[in-house]
Amino acid sequence: MFEAVELGRKVDRETWDRVTPGLRVDLLNAQFELRSADFPVLIVLSGDDRLGVDDTVNLLHEWLDVRYIETFGLGAPTDEERERPEFWRYWRTLPRRGRTAVYVGGWTLRAIRDRMGRRIKKVEFERALERIRRFERALADDGALVLKFWLHLPKDQHARRVRQSRRDPEKAWRVDDVDRRLLRDYDEAMRVVEHALRRTSTVEAPWIVVESTDRRHRALEIGRRVLESIQRRLHGTGEYRRADVAPDLTSHAESAGAERLVLDTVDLAAVVGREEYEGRFERAQAAVHRLSAEAVDRGVSSIVVLEGWDAAGKGGAIRRISAALDARHYRVIPVSSPTEEELAHHYLWRFWMPLPRAGHIVLFDRSWYGRVLVERVEGYAREGQWRRAYEEINEFEEQLVEHGIVLLKLWLHISREEQAARFEAREKTPYKKYKMTDEDYRNRDRWRAYEQAVHDMVARTSTEIAPWKLIAANDKRHARVTAMESLRDALEQRLR
Amino acid sequence: MFEAVELGRKVDRETWDRVTPGLRVDLLNAQFELRSADFPVLIVLSGDDRLGVDDTVNLLHEWLDVRYIETFGLGAPTDEERERPEFWRYWRTLPRRGRTAVYVGGWTLRAIRDRMGRRIKKVEFERALERIRRFERALADDGALVLKFWLHLPKDQHARRVRQSRRDPEKAWRVDDVDRRLLRDYDEAMRVVEHALRRTSTVEAPWIVVESTDRRHRALEIGRRVLESIQRRLHGTGEYRRADVAPDLTSHAESAGAERLVLDTVDLAAVVGREEYEGRFERAQAAVHRLSAEAVDRGVSSIVVLEGWDAAGKGGAIRRISAALDARHYRVIPVSSPTEEELAHHYLWRFWMPLPRAGHIVLFDRSWYGRVLVERVEGYAREGQWRRAYEEINEFEEQLVEHGIVLLKLWLHISREEQAARFEAREKTPYKKYKMTDEDYRNRDRWRAYEQAVHDMVARTSTEIAPWKLIAANDKRHARVTAMESLRDALEQRLR
Repeated sequence: MFEAVELGRKVDRETWDRVTPGLRVDLLNAQFELRSADFPVLIVLSGDDRLGVDDTVNLLHEWLDVRYIETFGLGAPTDEERERPEFWRYWRTLPRRGRTAVYVGGWTLRAIRDRMGRRIKKVEFERALERIRRFERALADDGALVLKFWLHLPKDQHARRVRQSRRDPEKAWRVDDVDRRLLRDYDEAMRVVEHALRRTSTVEAPWIVVESTDRRHRALEIGRRVLESIQRRLHGTGEYRRADVAPDLTSHAESAGAERLVLDTVDLAAVVGREEYEGRFERAQAAVHRLSAEAVDRGVSSIVVLEGWDAAGKGGAIRRISAALDARHYRVIPVSSPTEEELAHHYLWRFWMPLPRAGHIVLFDRSWYGRVLVERVEGYAREGQWRRAYEEINEFEEQLVEHGIVLLKLWLHISREEQAARFEAREKTPYKKYKMTDEDYRNRDRWRAYEQAVHDMVARTSTEIAPWKLIAANDKRHARVTAMESLRDALEQRLR
Repeated sequence: MFEAVELGRKVDRETWDRVTPGLRVDLLNAQFELRSADFPVLIVLSGDDRLGVDDTVNLLHEWLDVRYIETFGLGAPTDEERERPEFWRYWRTLPRRGRTAVYVGGWTLRAIRDRMGRRIKKVEFERALERIRRFERALADDGALVLKFWLHLPKDQHARRVRQSRRDPEKAWRVDDVDRRLLRDYDEAMRVVEHALRRTSTVEAPWIVVESTDRRHRALEIGRRVLESIQRRLHGTGEYRRADVAPDLTSHAESAGAERLVLDTVDLAAVVGREEYEGRFERAQAAVHRLSAEAVDRGVSSIVVLEGWDAAGKGGAIRRISAALDARHYRVIPVSSPTEEELAHHYLWRFWMPLPRAGHIVLFDRSWYGRVLVERVEGYAREGQWRRAYEEINEFEEQLVEHGIVLLKLWLHISREEQAARFEAREKTPYKKYKMTDEDYRNRDRWRAYEQAVHDMVARTSTEIAPWKLIAANDKRHARVTAMESLRDALEQRLR
């Protein structure tokens, strides 16, 4: 999830100066129009970047007409509040239709803090997350526009901030014990956060995770999201009105010079020499062979999802992995356009069907992610359908993982140029030519749209229980050995 | 919940013979039309009446064209099934669009059985129920029509059946240990069932609880519900298509001579003589006085909901209860048409606001139930709004109860004749005349519609954590003393 917002997105002062005046005018206009609208707006500002949250609140107050927004700090509950059910404090502050309320921190952050501070048990945490879903659903069903921002700072930035505060007494007061504790338990904390965001990211109120390192980027991203969401809600039609207005987790502010997407973090220069390859590959293959046999004995099954650009080498990786396996115990499921029978069912149906028996491995050559990739980009799925899919996929994968299945999700990444070269080579190779269709060329035209879809996919489905692994595949040896080693590591971790 | 289906509804043979031929033709026609429809139908048949479920399955097979339905028994999972995540067995059996699948027992019953057999912990039970909600929501979002029937048999009928099986060897094979155990732990079992049905009764897939005592009534009720739901789905338009087609929990089959509703179970002849009244009332009042003072000390707050027909005596009951309380610690909230400010919020907002502080009591003269009563009947709320309300109300009340608040819900019931007499008396009493409005008379015209709304309200919101108490109020003394004693009992139970 957070890998999609650790991109180093930045906005320079020039862009900022050029863009913000217009944005501020638009925001004020939207706010004016909102006054006579029949829905309220709730903006939840929270995140691991506490200071970023505070700054953003102040900025919104500067940018918006404060007569029509109200901001709630929601620190420790008052006596009054403790004497009522927990959500009383949220209900009493709900804005009326046409008005906006900003919640600093908010209900989900509170549940996360309670859990990290061990004030509530796992069961109570789950219960709290369920309550949050129901609360937000009730509001959304009633028409409310619920915008939830999570401001994320990478670990090194947290560390830098704490270091700076030690050196600079003037900044020190802004960094407190909470920040220091967070830094100390960062990895564990982020697991809890990912879990909470996954569970409370619904089609009616999805989390929008924002990269918080650069102040200007953060401000523009949030300002734009608020503006767009209100505008779409005021004027949008769309099949899926609710989802329409809750924009995607990470669509970025283009004109702000923040065009990096998650695939840009993959180092495509990664190369593995022939000699190194042979050693590493053989060892990994032998390990996979041994581990998969042990998995058969112990009844541990595995699912490997291979996704990636056309010609990225999915087939090659699958052939090599399957060569390490006993033919009786694995199965490859090539996924292409759904059959008539498959179309007559829920889209997940065809992926439930081939789930492996105990001890077996299923390799998916493309997968259920088609819903949020090709079907989204090519318009085969309606907006409501692919937006719902993130939640449904997370639920599906949770069931797999909770059943004890090893779930490995690999994306093979190549550059556009590399793809062009491989297409050309295919055209020239008689036995590979059949692989090329018109569609392959069409897909190339939408490269950018696919990149955005991959980005959103990683942001929303790379979870603490089923993370995505993005593999550089311009170099085939690098791709193959990394895929094999990833499977080895996944099996080892489960069987250990 | 179950009080709404313990009415002794029956269908005589004559009615049965008259009605079933037409119903069967209609069902076959609907089934034929369904074949080219773009949605599948899932019928879940489960209940505490195991034999009734079996009989109903056989009947559906007799009535429907079996080429287009498939029935799944779903007993103990097979090896194949145990090796996959639990829901695999449900996914693999999902019908394609245009087809119907009948599930005998089904996923919720399985969770209930696991819980009753102590095979899963409370946490796992909650998790299972959440998974069920998500599963059904995913199917409904994809267009599926999900009809879930719970066949309920009152305790005395269960007992009768077990007794009969002892006497009649030919019937004995149909009653097994499961039935005997159920009878032994009946009350506990029904609490678990109510909990599960409450948690999995959603607007997209609500439970339809069916009175199972009379074979013919049960069959007609289910047959009609299936027919109506498919027809409404095929041809309905409606704002809220999903909910539209999933009919209400207990709307009954009128022409089948089964017109009894839950209010008909209230014995309106109940009378309390003056002398008895004075003794009982004084004792109850003194107890409430003492207990409410103890509640103040211990910080236990209470909410009393008074609902009932116009002129049923809500005001009188409230005056008498409040006379037993310390004026500093209680508050009466009279609920009438929402203000402009209230309309500008979620309808529950105005009921969250006045929740009592620790130790205090709030008496609601009418309440949040207006949504599913007057707003439903008079059309002030759209169908989607009042249908969603059942779930939202149950969630709201769960939060109250979990916070430790004493929640008492009273319905004061009077006959239509009694109401007419009281209206007349009001017209003649100068200081009561102001109470009468045109609306009161208009409401009388919709008596039957209100009765149905009350019935559905009890069926869906009388839960194991917040049951409704229906009080006979033709006799004012009976109503007042019962209300007072109910509060005493509720306080006693909580403070004990």
